[in-house]
Amino acid sequence: MAKPTKPAGDLDRGHMAAALGLARRGLGRTWPNPSVGCVILDAAGEVVGRGFTRPTGRPHAETEALKEAGDRARGGTAYVSLEPCAHHGETPPCAEALAKAGIARCVVAVGDPDPRVAGGGIAILERAGIEVVRDVLRDDAAELNAGFFRRVIAGRPLVTLKLATTLDGKIATLSGESKWITGPQARAIGHQLRASHDAILVGSGTVLADDPELACRLPGLGARSPVPVILDGRLRLPLSARLARPGTWLVTRADHGPATLAPYRQAGMEVIQVGDGEGGLDMASLMLALGRQGLTRLLVEGGAGVATALIRQDLADRLAWFQAPLVLGNDGMAAIAGMAVSQLDRAHRFTLLSRQEAGEDSFAFYRRNGS
Amino acid sequence: MAKPTKPAGDLDRGHMAAALGLARRGLGRTWPNPSVGCVILDAAGEVVGRGFTRPTGRPHAETEALKEAGDRARGGTAYVSLEPCAHHGETPPCAEALAKAGIARCVVAVGDPDPRVAGGGIAILERAGIEVVRDVLRDDAAELNAGFFRRVIAGRPLVTLKLATTLDGKIATLSGESKWITGPQARAIGHQLRASHDAILVGSGTVLADDPELACRLPGLGARSPVPVILDGRLRLPLSARLARPGTWLVTRADHGPATLAPYRQAGMEVIQVGDGEGGLDMASLMLALGRQGLTRLLVEGGAGVATALIRQDLADRLAWFQAPLVLGNDGMAAIAGMAVSQLDRAHRFTLLSRQEAGEDSFAFYRRNGS
Ligand SMILES: NC(=O)c1ccc[n+]([C@@H]2O[C@H](COP(=O)([O-])OP(=O)(O)OC[C@H]3O[C@@H](n4cnc5c(N)ncnc54)[C@H](OP(=O)(O)O)[C@@H]3O)[C@@H](O)[C@H]2O)c1
Ligand SMILES: NC(=O)c1ccc[n+]([C@@H]2O[C@H](COP(=O)([O-])OP(=O)(O)OC[C@H]3O[C@@H](n4cnc5c(N)ncnc54)[C@H](OP(=O)(O)O)[C@@H]3O)[C@@H](O)[C@H]2O)c1
Repeated sequence: MAKPTKPAGDLDRGHMAAALGLARRGLGRTWPNPSVGCVILDAAGEVVGRGFTRPTGRPHAETEALKEAGDRARGGTAYVSLEPCAHHGETPPCAEALAKAGIARCVVAVGDPDPRVAGGGIAILERAGIEVVRDVLRDDAAELNAGFFRRVIAGRPLVTLKLATTLDGKIATLSGESKWITGPQARAIGHQLRASHDAILVGSGTVLADDPELACRLPGLGARSPVPVILDGRLRLPLSARLARPGTWLVTRADHGPATLAPYRQAGMEVIQVGDGEGGLDMASLMLALGRQGLTRLLVEGGAGVATALIRQDLADRLAWFQAPLVLGNDGMAAIAGMAVSQLDRAHRFTLLSRQEAGEDSFAFYRRNGS
Repeated sequence: MAKPTKPAGDLDRGHMAAALGLARRGLGRTWPNPSVGCVILDAAGEVVGRGFTRPTGRPHAETEALKEAGDRARGGTAYVSLEPCAHHGETPPCAEALAKAGIARCVVAVGDPDPRVAGGGIAILERAGIEVVRDVLRDDAAELNAGFFRRVIAGRPLVTLKLATTLDGKIATLSGESKWITGPQARAIGHQLRASHDAILVGSGTVLADDPELACRLPGLGARSPVPVILDGRLRLPLSARLARPGTWLVTRADHGPATLAPYRQAGMEVIQVGDGEGGLDMASLMLALGRQGLTRLLVEGGAGVATALIRQDLADRLAWFQAPLVLGNDGMAAIAGMAVSQLDRAHRFTLLSRQEAGEDSFAFYRRNGS
């Protein structure tokens, strides 16, 4: 029988914030699984265990935290950023492990929409007589897990479109000079963004223009480099490009035959085929294909063609917009091409989630309205 | 003889911040004079007088504050946001009035570059044996007085260019719909901006398109409406326009004769004639002409033609940039037209001075680098 629950207080929120901080460390490395954080207090209220989901999703956060806590978990409180799992996989469900360890109270930020969990984790806890407190820092936890939730609910990853523009929305001068519009602090945040995403998508235009590496160049974070994904319907990618390497995913049209694709596969690339859509590959099918591959958090780094298609089709769920305090004029290269929006109420609208000044530049993070 | 001065402390900065707050109230109404704030403490450190420059510049802040303080000024401290005046006008100089009232210590934020003052005010204070502390909140005071300083030093007003755009730098959809890009909070800040400026400049394109009123629509601030200035080289302004009214300044080409201009003068408008420049009237001459008229703070509200000319010629000293969180695409109408900038290091660069979120929108205030 579940005991009557006390409402959550500031102390609970503080420990949950720590659990969310732990969860955040795993972002970009746990796909197709969520990234979870767990903090365990002993009966006296002292922190005795911490854990977060390990790369690719195992061990779970609770397992790690319980291991650290050992016997001191008995009679204690567990803070979990996501409902503990309820399904038997390689290991018994975390909800059972928490009960078995003698946890007396479990504070949960948000429920897990995964149909194999979906309230089942909380039911196990309550059946074991654990006091369960829900919805502590729920919105923050939902935002942290937005990628996993999107994959579970909609079958596609959360799409974050990164843009670096002038105040007037330009990404390069009329002659194409674009290095560097933003300064080193903004670029460092850009690399952190990469580190917290599962994959980075670019269009073939950007690959042909810039031959990018798409690695994560933060000291010590090299191993975090996300999967490069190239949109290349017409197979314009030269095999000499830096990204034509093992581990890269090449997305191209469904009508290319195996012989045409052989050289890319020989170069170690994974080939994903999707049908045609407006102005190129069908973006909605692409996103479903990437969801089937297990991606939960996709960062899109350009160029204008891909960015425009995503915004137009309401597939850019988040904007990570860096703005440099300069003005280039309307003959500069635009970040977003024409979209034939004639009425203001048809404009693509976003809501600011956070902003930080980054050196001379500004970094604003937006949520697409309705996402 | 000047006494040895104590360095300024937090208490001094607090009182000076109050003096700057008072000075700010007068902005937009004291031209061609500066707007000054003054706070007087008695010998015990209690605030006994406050004043700020009254509309058109008289009485001065010090006069008002001394009047309120009366005898209690004796042995007290005066905080002035600008060096007290040293020249005999309709009334004796403020520096003398402070000495005569028995002020023992005077804290000054910034020196007055007006050649009739330029250190003379401080010299009078020191000769009277008053302890003078300088440069307290100097940068804030210099920014507050930037319009007056610009007129005194460069002969032209400080130019603030106001823009309201989408994230991608657009001011209207491709079909021209622009009402409203930003929301009510942003528009309220826009009206506050108007209230703190001496005059508002618009191009004839904007007048023909929008027939604006340019009044200050904040409750109780109607009387603060700045002088409307229209740039209209080709005299396209219809006499039926709302702005074709007494009090409006019409800036047009030097080669229009008196007969051509008569109807505008008959409508009560002040006609200012300047020579031709790149793409229209010569902007630099225009600004000098407005400086000669006494303007210290000019707000430019569009349109794209005028905004582009000002940025290109490095005449936009401040940007007041409202940004709505939406994306329109590159077929929308641009805030700034082409400027033929081909190298990034030739882009027009600004530095953020302040930012505030205004409802859904963001309001950022920038200083032109080198201004
Ligand atoms: N400052 C910045 O933030 C930034 C960031 C990145 C890039 N850039 C610049 O942007 C430029 C590249 O932009 P871009 O527009 O030419 O290239 P892009 O967006 O990188 O790639 C466009 C290509 O992607 C493929 N694609 C597949 N499906 C598509 C769809 N549904 N919609 C649109 N494209 C689709 C198309 O080629 P197929 O038909 O062959 O599939 C298309 O030609 C470069 O100059 C680069 O330097 C700037
Ligand atoms: N969202 C916003 O923030 C905002 C604000 C204001 C306006 N708008 C929109 O902007 C549009 C008007 O823009 P616009 O560019 O057509 O008109 P504009 O900038 O208001 O006026 C341009 C006119 O100003 C005169 N001018 C004089 N000297 C000039 C110079 N050196 N450089 C440029 N112009 C000079 C020219 O006429 P002469 O040759 O006759 O002198 C020129 O045609 C309207 O649709 C309006 O709704 C939007």
